[in-house]
Amino acid sequence: MTLAAVRALTFDVFGTTVDWRTGVAREVRMALEPHGPVLDWGAFADAWRARYKPAMAQVREGRRSFVVLDVLQREMLDATLAAHGMTLPEDEAADLAHAWRRLDPWPDTIEGMRRLRTRFALCALSNANVALMIEMSRFGGLTWDALLGGDVAMAYKPDAAVYDSAAARLGLEPGECLMVAAHPSDLRAAKGRGFRTAYVHRPLEYGPPAKATPDVADFDIAAESFVALAERLGV
Amino acid sequence: MTLAAVRALTFDVFGTTVDWRTGVAREVRMALEPHGPVLDWGAFADAWRARYKPAMAQVREGRRSFVVLDVLQREMLDATLAAHGMTLPEDEAADLAHAWRRLDPWPDTIEGMRRLRTRFALCALSNANVALMIEMSRFGGLTWDALLGGDVAMAYKPDAAVYDSAAARLGLEPGECLMVAAHPSDLRAAKGRGFRTAYVHRPLEYGPPAKATPDVADFDIAAESFVALAERLGV
Repeated sequence: MTLAAVRALTFDVFGTTVDWRTGVAREVRMALEPHGPVLDWGAFADAWRARYKPAMAQVREGRRSFVVLDVLQREMLDATLAAHGMTLPEDEAADLAHAWRRLDPWPDTIEGMRRLRTRFALCALSNANVALMIEMSRFGGLTWDALLGGDVAMAYKPDAAVYDSAAARLGLEPGECLMVAAHPSDLRAAKGRGFRTAYVHRPLEYGPPAKATPDVADFDIAAESFVALAERLGV
Repeated sequence: MTLAAVRALTFDVFGTTVDWRTGVAREVRMALEPHGPVLDWGAFADAWRARYKPAMAQVREGRRSFVVLDVLQREMLDATLAAHGMTLPEDEAADLAHAWRRLDPWPDTIEGMRRLRTRFALCALSNANVALMIEMSRFGGLTWDALLGGDVAMAYKPDAAVYDSAAARLGLEPGECLMVAAHPSDLRAAKGRGFRTAYVHRPLEYGPPAKATPDVADFDIAAESFVALAERLGV
């Protein structure tokens, strides 16, 4: 089965499709600055993000029942605020926890998706829940054929169940699905379930300095942008 | 809670958003005519459709495990062919079973959804599975914010679980969701779970003669088209 068999592209979202760090830093600044502190907003975003994998691991390892990412993000925010010796009024904390719904696409995202969608079904395959992705997609102008979120599979990547259930929902063989991600771990897990894989380099996902390209020999495609990916796929 | 609280519209698809009878009759004719018979193609479509509720009832009543609508449609097609004393080669039957992926929107659907989407999140809330809806939406040019199909809830309307799980996935209170359907039974079930309701009249869903408007006193809105619905909602 070659890449010619690919019928759907499944996209990682945070970091691959949208620039979470710039958006979260902006939202954190808007929420906290009126309360006085002047922080390194990017570093605050990083500290918040650093709690992401451990929080999901609790679910992935069965130490707590599945809860949607919105819930985890709120807990992670509260912990990050506490680590900075801060609290926020409830309504402001609830709104800031939704910072992850207000993130901008990378500059090539919209045009690349527009081109790719002329031939392929485009599906978000994110750990985000559907409600989060709806709002983020409307905020950033992203058009999907389907959203396959954490609360569709009721599991978190890189669990095999996420990829398996995505292929099933798409009614496709795994080899007809191409996972698009800036994260080798996501791609390796998808490949392990039979997906084809496209690495997209997002050197500024964690801010400057630019991240070096990792070893991408295991993946079918490595591209510098969604537009470059479209070109590689001939659309 | 008034209609001003509505944030998402959940749409029935077959009959409400797309004209299943014209499309299925066309596909049936294209598949069967080369084999010789000249039938009343609309009547064949009706006979196929008539097996829909009993087939879903088997799942809804626990007499069989959940299977996606594509599977039921294939079984229903085979039974309808048999009732006409016909069979088809396997590949042609498999393709014809996918007739439900190749249906045209009603003439007002695209423009109405475009207007409605400027303010509301638009979600398909259909008994169809995600794969079917992706292909049908691409065929007809429908743009959704999310697809909430039978294989997301793993249940069939009018089961309460379908509406409950839709509101949960949307992260909304039921009263923030407006169910849009041409079928009073769907609307009554949605209303029973706290949804707001909009009846859209599709007089030719079952072909001529035009269907009379049913009693719509129980519903928040009754409209003649998606464009009229947009006007009622002020968008």
